[in-house]
Amino acid sequence: MEIYNNIRLSKEDSEHLYIQLYKSIKELILGGKLMEGDRLPPVRKMAKMMEVNNVTIVKAYEILEKEALVYKRIGSGTYIAHQIKGDDPEGIEEETHQAINKHRLLDQGQIKIEENTINFASATPSAELFPVDDFKQVLNDVLDRDKGNAFGYQEGQGYYPLREILGSYVKEYGINVDAENIQVISGAQQGIDLVSKALLNYGDYVIIEGPSYTGAIAAFQSRGARIIDIPLEYDGLNLEILEKKIQSNRPKLLYIMPNFQNPTGVSYTREKKEKLLEICKNYGVYIMEDDYLSELNYYHDDTSTLKSIDKENIVIYVKSFSKIFMPGLRLGFLVIPNNLHGRLLMAKHTTDISTSGLLQRALELYLKKGIWQQHLRYMEGKYKERFEKMISCIEAYMPSEVEYILPRGGVNFWFKLPSNCSSQQLYELAVNENIVFAPGNLFHLNNFHDEYFRLSIAAVSPPEIEVGMRQLCKIMEEYINKYKSSVVRASTIKPIL
Amino acid sequence: MEIYNNIRLSKEDSEHLYIQLYKSIKELILGGKLMEGDRLPPVRKMAKMMEVNNVTIVKAYEILEKEALVYKRIGSGTYIAHQIKGDDPEGIEEETHQAINKHRLLDQGQIKIEENTINFASATPSAELFPVDDFKQVLNDVLDRDKGNAFGYQEGQGYYPLREILGSYVKEYGINVDAENIQVISGAQQGIDLVSKALLNYGDYVIIEGPSYTGAIAAFQSRGARIIDIPLEYDGLNLEILEKKIQSNRPKLLYIMPNFQNPTGVSYTREKKEKLLEICKNYGVYIMEDDYLSELNYYHDDTSTLKSIDKENIVIYVKSFSKIFMPGLRLGFLVIPNNLHGRLLMAKHTTDISTSGLLQRALELYLKKGIWQQHLRYMEGKYKERFEKMISCIEAYMPSEVEYILPRGGVNFWFKLPSNCSSQQLYELAVNENIVFAPGNLFHLNNFHDEYFRLSIAAVSPPEIEVGMRQLCKIMEEYINKYKSSVVRASTIKPIL
Repeated sequence: MEIYNNIRLSKEDSEHLYIQLYKSIKELILGGKLMEGDRLPPVRKMAKMMEVNNVTIVKAYEILEKEALVYKRIGSGTYIAHQIKGDDPEGIEEETHQAINKHRLLDQGQIKIEENTINFASATPSAELFPVDDFKQVLNDVLDRDKGNAFGYQEGQGYYPLREILGSYVKEYGINVDAENIQVISGAQQGIDLVSKALLNYGDYVIIEGPSYTGAIAAFQSRGARIIDIPLEYDGLNLEILEKKIQSNRPKLLYIMPNFQNPTGVSYTREKKEKLLEICKNYGVYIMEDDYLSELNYYHDDTSTLKSIDKENIVIYVKSFSKIFMPGLRLGFLVIPNNLHGRLLMAKHTTDISTSGLLQRALELYLKKGIWQQHLRYMEGKYKERFEKMISCIEAYMPSEVEYILPRGGVNFWFKLPSNCSSQQLYELAVNENIVFAPGNLFHLNNFHDEYFRLSIAAVSPPEIEVGMRQLCKIMEEYINKYKSSVVRASTIKPIL
Repeated sequence: MEIYNNIRLSKEDSEHLYIQLYKSIKELILGGKLMEGDRLPPVRKMAKMMEVNNVTIVKAYEILEKEALVYKRIGSGTYIAHQIKGDDPEGIEEETHQAINKHRLLDQGQIKIEENTINFASATPSAELFPVDDFKQVLNDVLDRDKGNAFGYQEGQGYYPLREILGSYVKEYGINVDAENIQVISGAQQGIDLVSKALLNYGDYVIIEGPSYTGAIAAFQSRGARIIDIPLEYDGLNLEILEKKIQSNRPKLLYIMPNFQNPTGVSYTREKKEKLLEICKNYGVYIMEDDYLSELNYYHDDTSTLKSIDKENIVIYVKSFSKIFMPGLRLGFLVIPNNLHGRLLMAKHTTDISTSGLLQRALELYLKKGIWQQHLRYMEGKYKERFEKMISCIEAYMPSEVEYILPRGGVNFWFKLPSNCSSQQLYELAVNENIVFAPGNLFHLNNFHDEYFRLSIAAVSPPEIEVGMRQLCKIMEEYINKYKSSVVRASTIKPIL
């Protein structure tokens, strides 16, 4: 029974005790600590151990059973089911992976969809927006200039001239660092993976926003970390809950997107940004700031990055060039506190030694030529057009039962269906009409948030937005009306946002 | 004291009990389970717990102290020292990382060395051998052909036409798979990282060759795995010890380089390859075969890959294009058993989503044009010239006290100094004379193998080999003679190879 000693259930937690217990046991199963055929303690015994009611245990076991993580043998007890056995990668675990991969593909605009499908799922710009000719030119310039040296191993931290120019680049965002504080990465996802490797050991706690970016959740889970999500409010994280969770769980890391968050579009107020820094400073928690899309700031709000107001050097800033440049290049960078250099460099070496020197050199030249600023303005213009079109469509067509907060930048819009509806079901209906979007489960730690969904404007033209939204909202309306009369599902989870 | 429960010392182990204990405690410290200021149990208590002699404990504590992992307070006990505190990345941990990074840089030819230094350390070809013009041509062809599509997200598993052509490519090596079994990776290091993520959980066992590739050791350690090294003999792993270790530790994975191993140059006999497969099949252990350099087979030996004779589908084959193509491209591939697809794809997504589409497309075209075969023959010719020069220099200049087995392919040569000598000291002497090489510690799990070192011919021309070897052997001779008279160091470790 020793294995259960580390489970700590807290009544002060915003999460129900049975959810806490369910999550803890699931973790033990997925982490291989509980194996196929192991028996869970009988309800009464477990209740005594955890100092909770029998009902709490029953409910937790029920969810585990529903997710096929355990099964019951009548008169004998509850046992760990087959699919989670680490040594047999076939079966349901494989299917789970495939399902997650499918979602990720959707997000990256990679899913194979019908020719005439309208794609509100992809948060990745369409190929016609990429500055192909300019980039071809710099590639050739680099090859003529550097020859074989462009193909040798690059310094693990990144090609020095690129780091230098990135240092100046972030100065425009109020971040005062030099080349030594820059770590070049192969895209933001790698940044998250590296920070996980550098900071997180098995069993460490990480706090994320609920909802958050799937890729980050997956990276933390892969590291064996315990993840806690804190409700995201219209102006940023709920700081009261945050502080309590920090006190009770002593996390190593907080992962957030303070401007135009993915998937919700929420931006933190300046006040919340400052308070957040204060709290994390007090408890010695590093913050990973994923600067997802603060460039797409259509109304010139204060989108100061956390890093720019980080006096204590506790913020690790992650920036990708995928969203407004070219995803396929796989380039990005971290701005790192001085004392994390060695750890991150080590993690980079362990992960892939270094990022392609050729592409780093080409990006450096591209930035040096000042073409970047031009391209940025071009993308901003394109996206703003789509953004405004989307807002007018939402106002015109969105059923009144659907809740949302309009974002003020970025490419994502977040919606909440009435609580008896399922975005997964809506997705199936929409696909039949050649419209895709991202169901909300994708962005949550668990499957209790089926009423949310995300629409993204990254890969749709204004006319597509018009046609697609009119159609999608019609489907939604019919779907909602159909379920209006049906029994209201008992929603046990506090709504987030 | 619960924390020590998982330590299992075995008298049947080839390793001394105190080494086993030292390693286990070190693991607890580096894994953050023992923290700064924690006191180790008193010697007698620990001896009782572990059921061993007091002397065993004293010796283990001594090594830990020597490595500054613990310190003694007179009359009070032994405490965990500062540098390993997970929350404070400054200090010695940082220095350790830097030292490891320095070694890695050396290996990749990245170390900043004097202009006229002769570099026997780098296992990476020099820039003048790269097919720059040909690659520039295919890059431009791809950009003209694919435009923006070359810059979109690529399928996580890899650009399909590239996977197809890699499928045909490996057929020449006797590996019969199709595109579905290929996973494109950003270099071999990433392949090792992905396989670690897909197969290893915290605390799982991995078996490696002793000595082995540092980058693999680092990746397994970063994953929280327990690593066991098995002595490598002139014809491959000692299979008897291997089987015992598999029985006692039930590892998830065996990581080996069966042809022209790095750093030793050792190749497995066909018989050992087959027996190895048999053993791993029987115990359900996956094998990761790092095909480091089987192309550089100067005497046309049987260099069948394990994968080509793997009927049970338990071999994961890793191939990099860095060693004989261009390291800076960061391209390679895995050949994977069917049932691991989902896991590896998931790991790839979590790690960096996908490898640069532009580079994948360029490589595909390069392979399709048949330029690869030409380049390979060119590199083979270049390397063979160096290889033969090296052998004649070894025969002419190497002091008789130095032991070695000549390899029959690849780029690495492995040597053993007399046991009272230190390759680290020799390195310092050589650097003063502008010669660098790779000290043996780099390739071992611990620091007890200081008498070994590796010379590589990847980055030195035949005239440099002549001059460098004459000089280095002179330095060696003087160094050995100086220490001949000194006290013979008590060698507690069984010599490997």
